[in-house]
Parts: sequence; structure tokens; C-alpha cells
Amino acid sequence: MRKKDQQRESFLLKSFGEVVRIRRVKLNMTQEELGNVAKLHRTYITDIESGLRNLTFLTMERIAAALDASLAELIGEAESIDS
Amino acid sequence: MRKKDQQRESFLLKSFGEVVRIRRVKLNMTQEELGNVAKLHRTYITDIESGLRNLTFLTMERIAAALDASLAELIGEAESIDS
Repeated sequence: MRKKDQQRESFLLKSFGEVVRIRRVKLNMTQEELGNVAKLHRTYITDIESGLRNLTFLTMERIAAALDASLAELIGEAESIDS
Repeated sequence: MRKKDQQRESFLLKSFGEVVRIRRVKLNMTQEELGNVAKLHRTYITDIESGLRNLTFLTMERIAAALDASLAELIGEAESIDS
């Protein structure tokens, strides 16, 4: 893979994590609370928000549902940060 | 996980696969051609289109790019089939 593509991918993960963090804070949720609703460990939420996880479609859907959003919204925001 | 949630997840994967298939056919691409552009094996494209794969964020991004779409668009379409 070209370096440019790798950089874009890394940036996309970070952007998605940032979108999750902003939404979670807006809802006054802790990482632990979000983890409980989405059935994910708190440390996994930490990793996602730091852009360290290439998560799967269904995990992203669970996070979106826990944040009372559609996944299309979250990804749209992440892609718009990215572009 | 409750049965209802499992059914929704299975339906989401199928809906996403359907959206990919429709876009690919519209672009007159074979599964092999889409695979070549997205750097995925043809049989993996077959599985995705059949809703058999819970693919990762970055793989979905590669497919969206190969279909000349944003991932937010594809997921928005899949979620709207789903609801």
C-alpha cells in the first residue's frame, strides 16, 4: 500500500475516534458508560477514541446506536474531517 | 445478545452487501474488477455482497473508494433499507 493511502487510513480511524469522543462528551457519558451500553470494554472505547482500532461494521453500529446516532452520520462526520 | 439484535445485525450486513452489489453492477464492474481496485480477493467480494462478512471500517472505505462513493453514502443506503 502506498504511504499516502496508509496516512489516509490512519487519519480516518483518528477522525472516527474524534467523532465518537465528541458525541459521547456531548451526551455526558463516560467511556465506561458508553462501553456498558455498546457492550464493549472501557479500554476498547479508549482505543477507538484514540484511533487505534480498525473496528468492524457491526461494532461501529453498536457504538452509533449507543450514541443515539446512525452510523452514516458518524462516518459522514469522520469523512468530512478527513477531506 | 437478544435475538432481535442478532437479526438486525445480520440484516445490516445483507443490506450493505446489496448496496455494494447494486453500485458495482451500475458501474459495469465484475466482482473480480472491484476486487482488483479494492485490493480484495474476488471471493471476498462475493461474501461481502452475500452479507457473510462483518468487514472492518478500512476495508469498507476501500470498497467505497473503488465504487467512487463515500462510505457514509453506502452505509446510509444500507441503514435505510434496514429501517
